[in-house]
Amino acid sequence: MSDPDFDSHLRNILQDREHGASELARRCLTLLAEIAEHAPADDSHGLRALLDHQAGRLAEARPSMAPVGNLLERWRHELARRANENDLSLWRRQAAAVARELAAASLRAVDDLSAHGAALLGPGRTIMTHSLSSTVLAVFRALKDSGLEVIVTESRPLCEGRRLAEQLSRWEVPVTYITDAQMGLFVARADAVLVGADSLLADGSVVNKSGTYPLALLAREQAVPFYVCCESFKRWRGSDQPPLEEMAAEELGVEALPQVSIRNIYFEITPARWVSAWISEQGIVRGSGAGKKNAGV
Amino acid sequence: MSDPDFDSHLRNILQDREHGASELARRCLTLLAEIAEHAPADDSHGLRALLDHQAGRLAEARPSMAPVGNLLERWRHELARRANENDLSLWRRQAAAVARELAAASLRAVDDLSAHGAALLGPGRTIMTHSLSSTVLAVFRALKDSGLEVIVTESRPLCEGRRLAEQLSRWEVPVTYITDAQMGLFVARADAVLVGADSLLADGSVVNKSGTYPLALLAREQAVPFYVCCESFKRWRGSDQPPLEEMAAEELGVEALPQVSIRNIYFEITPARWVSAWISEQGIVRGSGAGKKNAGV
Repeated sequence: MSDPDFDSHLRNILQDREHGASELARRCLTLLAEIAEHAPADDSHGLRALLDHQAGRLAEARPSMAPVGNLLERWRHELARRANENDLSLWRRQAAAVARELAAASLRAVDDLSAHGAALLGPGRTIMTHSLSSTVLAVFRALKDSGLEVIVTESRPLCEGRRLAEQLSRWEVPVTYITDAQMGLFVARADAVLVGADSLLADGSVVNKSGTYPLALLAREQAVPFYVCCESFKRWRGSDQPPLEEMAAEELGVEALPQVSIRNIYFEITPARWVSAWISEQGIVRGSGAGKKNAGV
Repeated sequence: MSDPDFDSHLRNILQDREHGASELARRCLTLLAEIAEHAPADDSHGLRALLDHQAGRLAEARPSMAPVGNLLERWRHELARRANENDLSLWRRQAAAVARELAAASLRAVDDLSAHGAALLGPGRTIMTHSLSSTVLAVFRALKDSGLEVIVTESRPLCEGRRLAEQLSRWEVPVTYITDAQMGLFVARADAVLVGADSLLADGSVVNKSGTYPLALLAREQAVPFYVCCESFKRWRGSDQPPLEEMAAEELGVEALPQVSIRNIYFEITPARWVSAWISEQGIVRGSGAGKKNAGV
């Protein structure tokens, strides 16, 4: 893959508003697998240096998203272990295979997580969510034929809620679709709130799309359980908090005006004390948030 | 005014999303004054019956908005006191004059209120608001040359926040403009939250645009004072709570999908216990919400 090609992929990942952290991490791994297989190189040492550099640039592209950094770091770690492999074509195959295995492990984690999530929520529930998380969608898929109903917020500015509503509609799952401003009117109609995470801090606090914090606070106020589903490689490894990415003001679709500063901060941190349970591929960890509202498992 | 004309005015008031409760109440009074002056009538008795009927229909048009009902009820009460006036042209003048006096009293109340509000908030403050209230705007007008800054939510579905930002921009007041979903990120940057009300319940609870309830809860969580400005004829007189008007789903701009119910409830009730102070034309009444954040009057 030539540099202009890589730059264009990098730009897509940088500007991507459609996919969550896990999906983008898997796309990075797939991209690196393709580079490992096809990039021009004289020897394995030169190719490894190139891939190492490109993996670093991919990880920096989405700093709020822990799995991008974590999975790429795991991959670089595996490459470093194979530093003595001098056969270029063998090295290519190994580097690509490791990337694809990590992407597959990430998908398996979502599968395992969705089974735990479905067992925790149980059949016949009304679940409220915010933004579009592929992990939350996997839990909904596991529950779609057992009486699930979903309350979906539109999630401005780009309204990922619309795509979620479309998918649920295709599955024939009844959806109540609301503006973000109506959160407070609808949270008490849910048996639980379920959101994904872009990163999970060491203390269990949740980095997720803006609007998650007020939804968690409303859930606590109305005694509705607030669940977070999140694979284990979403754990933030840094010592500081991740930066909260701010996107282009133009996404709000408002004309520029003198004295008016349009803000578009994508992520916010919801404190661990409002979380009723974390769902990962390893199982359920209970928190101090509201308990289960209506009986259940 | 012929019936088709009245019906078209009534429809405008029914469908109006641009104006708050006080402004719509004044428009109803002005409309009735014009009908009193110009509607064809054989005698004052017949005209009074027509106006009484039309005032009733106007009051029913916006059931969540107490001032519409209250001011029209005051006007009907005044008309009833003049029931023995048989001179048609004199009665026309009196009925129109009473309607215009009530509209003027409503405007005076906003003026008096804005002076109390400006004194409570003080100069050099950053104030956060939600939706577009002409009463809040009057307080901002009183403070616009004394270092005021405003955090404005867009207020989906129709984004009244944009018109507020435009007005503040014309006044050269610095504005931070955000999506409703970013409320939780910005509330702590405000010295106080100030909202209007469409109705005020007997216990001080506030009927206002959806999104007010989460904003009040966030303000309490972050120890930011939450102020409500509201003329006294916004007090709800009924024994029950007002109905919370739901508007057309089309306002959300989403395509209809099978199994997807699009909801657009315009108003919600914020409990009195989260209100730090109510500001009316009569002065300030303190509540049990958060105290004043940064010194002040």
